[in-house]
Amino acid sequence: MEAELKEMLTDLDTLKRSLPDHPSLNSSIDKMQLRVEHLTNLAKSAPGRRLKVKDMSAEVVDSNPYSRLMALQRMGIVENYERIREFSVAIVGIGGVGSVAAEMLTRCGIGRLLLYDYDKVELANMNRLFFRPEQVGMTKTDAAVQTLSDINPDVVLESYTLNITTLQGFETFMSSLKNKTFCPSKQGIGVDLVLSCVDNYEARMVVNQACNELNQTWMESGVSEDAVSGHIQLLIPGETACFACAPPLVVASGVDERTLKREGVCAASLPTTMGVVAGLLVQNTLKYLLKFGYVSPYLGYNALKDYFPTMEMKPNPQCSNAACLERQNEYILAKPARDAAAKAKKEEASEPDSLKDKINVLDDSERNITLLQESETSLPKSATLSLIASITILMEGFVPSNPEVDSLADAQIRLSLAMEVLDLNLIKQRLDHLNAL
Amino acid sequence: MEAELKEMLTDLDTLKRSLPDHPSLNSSIDKMQLRVEHLTNLAKSAPGRRLKVKDMSAEVVDSNPYSRLMALQRMGIVENYERIREFSVAIVGIGGVGSVAAEMLTRCGIGRLLLYDYDKVELANMNRLFFRPEQVGMTKTDAAVQTLSDINPDVVLESYTLNITTLQGFETFMSSLKNKTFCPSKQGIGVDLVLSCVDNYEARMVVNQACNELNQTWMESGVSEDAVSGHIQLLIPGETACFACAPPLVVASGVDERTLKREGVCAASLPTTMGVVAGLLVQNTLKYLLKFGYVSPYLGYNALKDYFPTMEMKPNPQCSNAACLERQNEYILAKPARDAAAKAKKEEASEPDSLKDKINVLDDSERNITLLQESETSLPKSATLSLIASITILMEGFVPSNPEVDSLADAQIRLSLAMEVLDLNLIKQRLDHLNAL
Repeated sequence: MEAELKEMLTDLDTLKRSLPDHPSLNSSIDKMQLRVEHLTNLAKSAPGRRLKVKDMSAEVVDSNPYSRLMALQRMGIVENYERIREFSVAIVGIGGVGSVAAEMLTRCGIGRLLLYDYDKVELANMNRLFFRPEQVGMTKTDAAVQTLSDINPDVVLESYTLNITTLQGFETFMSSLKNKTFCPSKQGIGVDLVLSCVDNYEARMVVNQACNELNQTWMESGVSEDAVSGHIQLLIPGETACFACAPPLVVASGVDERTLKREGVCAASLPTTMGVVAGLLVQNTLKYLLKFGYVSPYLGYNALKDYFPTMEMKPNPQCSNAACLERQNEYILAKPARDAAAKAKKEEASEPDSLKDKINVLDDSERNITLLQESETSLPKSATLSLIASITILMEGFVPSNPEVDSLADAQIRLSLAMEVLDLNLIKQRLDHLNAL
Repeated sequence: MEAELKEMLTDLDTLKRSLPDHPSLNSSIDKMQLRVEHLTNLAKSAPGRRLKVKDMSAEVVDSNPYSRLMALQRMGIVENYERIREFSVAIVGIGGVGSVAAEMLTRCGIGRLLLYDYDKVELANMNRLFFRPEQVGMTKTDAAVQTLSDINPDVVLESYTLNITTLQGFETFMSSLKNKTFCPSKQGIGVDLVLSCVDNYEARMVVNQACNELNQTWMESGVSEDAVSGHIQLLIPGETACFACAPPLVVASGVDERTLKREGVCAASLPTTMGVVAGLLVQNTLKYLLKFGYVSPYLGYNALKDYFPTMEMKPNPQCSNAACLERQNEYILAKPARDAAAKAKKEEASEPDSLKDKINVLDDSERNITLLQESETSLPKSATLSLIASITILMEGFVPSNPEVDSLADAQIRLSLAMEVLDLNLIKQRLDHLNAL
């Protein structure tokens, strides 16, 4: 617009110079020139864009968009935050969860985002975050690229306006995932993680099929039709249950997997539930990519009770998905080598002296999910002692102004771990006893 | 801008009519008129605004911004969603949590939002949701009003660019909370809930002081300096611990309560943690205002472990805050009347036959927090039986393709409740035993 206005000024100037003997017309042209200058100022005050940043700096200045992220390194949470620029994440479904997930990853400075959706923005989407009323009518992919490229021009955005459940859509989906141009040296296919943020069973089964075929780790997400529960799930082909391994569990998790777009039926949705699910999903994505903390195999969110169920699912040897069975066989065949590597690593490391240490030991090949499973079978004596101390503090109740209770939150975490570690027999005994009364 | 361009067209037309004998100049003016028309089209394609909506409709059409929210009624989650338009919520601190909380409430169609902040938007804020690079330099309150009024013009926005910890700021803060013009018939002061989304101890103590003085229920929120934990907390003056009752707990919760703005020190932050905390905060706000589900007295989020600690805190009879002590006395004095009302309600209701039923019984005067406490002391036999059945399913493990496990998620919820109900002695015994080995 500014260029057009500049040309306009030149036009008016030419006109004025061709009318030297018309003072009244000249003053009218002067007035128009002032008007154009005013319009130029108006256009200039419209949104400016931030410039690209070459290297992520940890410098603490207000103008550094990455200072608060690079601080994660200084605080010892992440070893090398800047690695995030090497990663490609595919987000399938740019709705209530997918759009927020895309914005979070964009603000975190992810290297490359691949976005898939075929839908358009409607006013009915305005009760969830991200899309704005002025984007109504645009495709969700176009609207997302518009907003995300303004927020962070450093992120490489690739958008695909297509339906992955169609034959052609699936082909494009597969070839886009395989494309390694962004980082030719990387292992595996062209993306590091696939996030499924779709709202129907059919699309989930398609993502499942693609990831099983490509041996690609992915994360599932979903929100129930009544808007008050949701979940995220990590799927590693061959190692964990795939989406086809355990269909009934999906029903158990409270998610209605039939399409949400049935004629005349309108699912409820809330920006809160969607925001929490997107936050948990991207948090687990960051933990998975940047190798910190514990990546949850399954995490549910029951909004009515603020309850967060967790579970783990092994693959089903009778799974109906042929590619899943292939991945399962590969995983079993690789077991001896994996065990040997784990054993070598274990011998190398000194014996951890607390549960906390145990959890923080990260293993590249196995991820810490497996390590946590191992810790279930044996509990070192020091950890037991520490647990008893923590529980004693809890049992004595909360004493205000007592500096000792600084460790209360820590005690609660330990207690929860203790409950997971203890077998359930004791609890059953107690209930049998109650029932006999 | 469109009006200016229209006047420009008129000017050019006048100019053209005053030069009937200059065909070459006329064609140059024609060219300019085409240019202005093009500019008008460009200006028209710039952001449009959605119109105000008089009544919230449940009609399932793409153009209805409230259809997915009104669906909460049809699904039996909320009794009367439209009541949300009567409520006023004050948000203190429009940073990483407060801004997202404000956006969520705006998209939910809250009646009125009061926003308080004294800070300006910086590029360093871009790693959290909400603010955009083009808003750098604006006050956070102005930028928030700009974005929120575009998203939902139905919400009444009141912004206060001030520091509540100054004498004058506190006075304005207090009088704005007391102002009842928006809904003169409402009980209490002018707002229904205060959300504290500040990042320092001093500001929290000021919100605490105001709410204790005004006998106003509020919710606290916070995120740790290392960006990987956060919490929300419900504070009801006299009934729960106030922020001054239990200062050490704040430290225990992993939040560093000293200011985050120390010279040269930069706290880490993540859009994920902030988004989850804002989501949990506003979800509890909706549950509190619209009376559904369980409002958590305290809910923590440990992002490294995906662990969500909960707890309840009674007020400290030795609290240093005089207004808190006054509220505590009032609460104790009102106990007989409260007990009588609760007893009458209990006799009226039939005996619940499962834990689930028990939790769903909502009590207006007490909220269900108290009801859950009551259920801790006695567990009906049917609930015990149901728990045993659930735990048995869990103990047998997950069997893929078994339709019986549809209830697995439900079983987990029941198990968690069982663990809360059982006293901790058994667990301590078990640990003593382990330790003796």
